[in-house]
Amino acid sequence: MAVVYDRVALIGLGLIAGSMSLAMREAGLAREVVGYARSAETRDTAREIGLVDRVTGTAAEAAEGADLVVLAVPVGAMGAVAAEIAPVLKRGATVTDVGSVKRAVVEAVAPHIPEGVHFIPGHPLAGTEHSGPRSGFASLFRNRWWLLTPVEGSDPEAVARLAGLIRAMGANVEEMDAAHHDLVLAVTSHTPHLIAYTMVGVADHLKRVTESEVIKYSAAGFRDFTRIAASDPTMWRDVFLQNKDAVLDILGRFTEELFVLQRAIRMGDGQHLHDYFTRTRAIRRGIIEAGQDTSAPDFGRSQVSGKDA
Amino acid sequence: MAVVYDRVALIGLGLIAGSMSLAMREAGLAREVVGYARSAETRDTAREIGLVDRVTGTAAEAAEGADLVVLAVPVGAMGAVAAEIAPVLKRGATVTDVGSVKRAVVEAVAPHIPEGVHFIPGHPLAGTEHSGPRSGFASLFRNRWWLLTPVEGSDPEAVARLAGLIRAMGANVEEMDAAHHDLVLAVTSHTPHLIAYTMVGVADHLKRVTESEVIKYSAAGFRDFTRIAASDPTMWRDVFLQNKDAVLDILGRFTEELFVLQRAIRMGDGQHLHDYFTRTRAIRRGIIEAGQDTSAPDFGRSQVSGKDA
Repeated sequence: MAVVYDRVALIGLGLIAGSMSLAMREAGLAREVVGYARSAETRDTAREIGLVDRVTGTAAEAAEGADLVVLAVPVGAMGAVAAEIAPVLKRGATVTDVGSVKRAVVEAVAPHIPEGVHFIPGHPLAGTEHSGPRSGFASLFRNRWWLLTPVEGSDPEAVARLAGLIRAMGANVEEMDAAHHDLVLAVTSHTPHLIAYTMVGVADHLKRVTESEVIKYSAAGFRDFTRIAASDPTMWRDVFLQNKDAVLDILGRFTEELFVLQRAIRMGDGQHLHDYFTRTRAIRRGIIEAGQDTSAPDFGRSQVSGKDA
Repeated sequence: MAVVYDRVALIGLGLIAGSMSLAMREAGLAREVVGYARSAETRDTAREIGLVDRVTGTAAEAAEGADLVVLAVPVGAMGAVAAEIAPVLKRGATVTDVGSVKRAVVEAVAPHIPEGVHFIPGHPLAGTEHSGPRSGFASLFRNRWWLLTPVEGSDPEAVARLAGLIRAMGANVEEMDAAHHDLVLAVTSHTPHLIAYTMVGVADHLKRVTESEVIKYSAAGFRDFTRIAASDPTMWRDVFLQNKDAVLDILGRFTEELFVLQRAIRMGDGQHLHDYFTRTRAIRRGIIEAGQDTSAPDFGRSQVSGKDA
């Protein structure tokens, strides 16, 4: 495949950035991939395993002269990184990010982007429960969605080029408004994650059921909630703080709905429960028909076996 | 393997009973497996595919002369079936069930069991999102837990014999008290299922996010909640009605916990969120260490591919 960007700079060297590097190199999409991570340990590991072509000592050093800069740090750190690299950004370069929320990233990053540099926020709907520089693999994005939320006045050519890179890594690209992105993700990802975290917390505090029993019988449903609860705490803290409005909105609706079902249980209203459980089948059917289901449910995370895929 | 029961009667011919028949026949654990289902269509299908050795026209006809009778009907129907078969039960026979709640089943069934018949309630922690006579497969119980909740004065020999059959079908047997079973399952299965149903209902009602978007981006977490929401509505209605106290107890704790997290999001208390998300990792580690995780999270359901296993 043809080179899309001469030099790509990855700021942050975790699962997403690492997988991007491997995917880009596998397909020959960049002449050089440089990377930086705040942690010296991560930089050492990246050097040791040859995750990128070159590991730099600062974010600015990585970004300088790059044609594409990818901000792959927790959402709460995006603003500071943008401020640091802004002075060295090349005219005509594109800056994107891979954060799970978009409005907050636009607010934090856009003000730092100099004239003549394209800022195109993005969000790959891909991940695993693993994190760190050793967790990446080239096929992570294959057949996954990668949402782009171009800002007012984004250069269509720069957007098309970035979309081309993403498609060449195997993902499907869709564009939408940042606010809409945040609401869609609050429904399909953020709130489900918070709920799963909560359920794990409940089990952890319960004294009458021992932890060993919770673990032993976890395959009855609970186990899949714990998979989520192993996700990176910093990333998820930032997601909830930065997508506060949409998450609180969906949580409010969730609680209302839960109370209605809880009341039906308390009152012994079997008809209500049966009708509700029957209605929810339609969405499931839609997902199967849309080809978005696999035999390996994974909370949006590729299986570890994906490494071998 | 040696025959454990001469004649086994399955009352109900859905996923669990069908899988039991296939597993028992594969391993030669019964000389004859007879079956009955209330629906004529199910009986016809069972005959057509040869699911059991003989399909009878009534539950009593199936139970008459059987050495083991398995009640595999929704929990709400157990009492009526027990009353119907009670007069024909053979002295020395064992009656068990496969319901997801145990206290309510004991209350509904035990009064009908005649003197000299052993009643040993049970619950296999196994299933798929499919139901009906065509959904069973012999390996469904392999490496799954099968909980037995013998009642006061159960004959140890009868319990050991039933446990032997279950182990021969590939499952692991554990005994516990019926009330404790119901609490453990409320935590590890029932409440997670209700929560997942609720989240799917929320998405279904949301107008600002289209259904097609929810479906399209469901792999970000939501999808696995919908898998649950495709479960049999009658079975789950009965579970929630029959395990009301334990489910309401756990739901109350869940809501408290959720409100504390919701408040932390509203107040921007990142430290609280980070600490919480860090603590929940321990349970996840425990599950991995206990060997109760696979690369295919399935809410306690075997993958369809298990059919080929």
